[in-house]
Amino acid sequence: MKWLPGQPVVDARTPALKARLERARARLGRAPKLRVFLVGEDPASHIYVEMKRKRGIALGVEVEVVRLSSGSTAPTLWSLITQANQDPSVDGILIQRPLPFAAEAPGAPGLQEWVSASKDVDAFHPFHLGRLGQGEPQITACTPAGIMALLDHYEIELEGRLACVVGRSPLVGQPMGLALLNRSATLIQCHRKTERLSALTRQADLLVVAAGSRGLITAQHVKPGAVVVDVGIHKKSQGGITGDVLADEVSKIAAQMTPVPGGVGPLTVHFLFENLVTLTEARDPISGVTRLYTERA
Amino acid sequence: MKWLPGQPVVDARTPALKARLERARARLGRAPKLRVFLVGEDPASHIYVEMKRKRGIALGVEVEVVRLSSGSTAPTLWSLITQANQDPSVDGILIQRPLPFAAEAPGAPGLQEWVSASKDVDAFHPFHLGRLGQGEPQITACTPAGIMALLDHYEIELEGRLACVVGRSPLVGQPMGLALLNRSATLIQCHRKTERLSALTRQADLLVVAAGSRGLITAQHVKPGAVVVDVGIHKKSQGGITGDVLADEVSKIAAQMTPVPGGVGPLTVHFLFENLVTLTEARDPISGVTRLYTERA
Repeated sequence: MKWLPGQPVVDARTPALKARLERARARLGRAPKLRVFLVGEDPASHIYVEMKRKRGIALGVEVEVVRLSSGSTAPTLWSLITQANQDPSVDGILIQRPLPFAAEAPGAPGLQEWVSASKDVDAFHPFHLGRLGQGEPQITACTPAGIMALLDHYEIELEGRLACVVGRSPLVGQPMGLALLNRSATLIQCHRKTERLSALTRQADLLVVAAGSRGLITAQHVKPGAVVVDVGIHKKSQGGITGDVLADEVSKIAAQMTPVPGGVGPLTVHFLFENLVTLTEARDPISGVTRLYTERA
Repeated sequence: MKWLPGQPVVDARTPALKARLERARARLGRAPKLRVFLVGEDPASHIYVEMKRKRGIALGVEVEVVRLSSGSTAPTLWSLITQANQDPSVDGILIQRPLPFAAEAPGAPGLQEWVSASKDVDAFHPFHLGRLGQGEPQITACTPAGIMALLDHYEIELEGRLACVVGRSPLVGQPMGLALLNRSATLIQCHRKTERLSALTRQADLLVVAAGSRGLITAQHVKPGAVVVDVGIHKKSQGGITGDVLADEVSKIAAQMTPVPGGVGPLTVHFLFENLVTLTEARDPISGVTRLYTERA
């Protein structure tokens, strides 16, 4: 069994990313800027934002964290996002999930559309999911983008192979399935309503688990010799984190497998900045309008 | 074996559609208007456009067909589409495919984005595919929308059932898969690179074939008792049309099946007008801006 750690993939991609960010900086006359909105006191959210901030600074990105108290309201956040969408000094915007309130504000669309597609480094806007579904993504949601980079780095063949994604969330499972189809894998997409889950997962050459269900995938779910990617993150009561896959037993069956921690996680953070630079490169420095997508601010 | 014709589904849906169109007409002070762009001399395209025009007129929609010769250019078409996007008297826009030239024009995005999402009755814009992928479609591409209506009309259960879509085109196969996932079917999505196709299709309770390959699906591809939906349209040399499914032999295996012709086709045309009225209802009569989606014209 070969482990597939994420950090070597990040390390291999970092020089090219730094070079692109340096060119963007030269063109803009300033560091590319990411504005992060962090609402409330959820400790995990604070840890994630701090990881993103540190990684951005190491890459030469200006990361501005806007902290709002848990007593703030959706209309306040919507108003601040709208300002950031229009602000030409802001290249990328990120809303740390989950929010402590329902994202409902007068005149506002669904939360996935609050951040302009042209600044949406998470690629959560339906425009980005749609372009991915059409096989021509501008940017892809960070976790699926990171997993595709990991599979390529470890030279895992996809064309014609049977891939199974467990999970269909709009932010991970759904774009993951579309990204695999774009690379000509055959796709089985399972979710909480799937009957006889193991009969399906056991057929897959590549199993990507993004179910958000600790230890869901056991040895009986896995085809011998399969490649297994575990997107789950769950706190263990004794400390540390674990995934959606029971690693002890599945590692005896699979040929290759991502660890938790140290698998997909570092790539997800990394792709925020690949997406940031892609969006920055697409922006016309004169008009501030992106070439690939325009929308009313 | 029970046949699943499309016309009864159209007939059942028409009164509600007419009532919505009538309300739109009262609100607008004129009939809702669909502008169709037809380029070149392809006979099939002319037949399809005429079908759409007649159906529109029967529903009380104003259908304007803009005919361009095959000698016209992509920049000319792009300029006319841009005008129509901005024209408040045009409620819906449709470009009849295929075009006789590559859809490339200075300043233009990919063809799927030429028609503003707010007027794109085909729902080919990535915004619509993305919203479908997020489980909150405003409108859905006409063929998948029609198939979902057909499955509902004939009370075919989807939740937890294993559905297989053969084909992954951005206009049919891809949104079909997403629509089935939204209804909690488990999805197998196959395509031309799929290995051992029949081993996968044969597992499916519901098989939707949109491969564009005449007679691809034979008895050995179908689970006994399955529901089979055939999206294919192919001219027979002896006249008439046939589908992607070998109906003679598959009809002995399947429990229910759509005919070709007379299955999915009438629903595809019908949903152009359901989509038209949905987009018209979403448009603010004062500003001309849709509530669900705004973009720079």
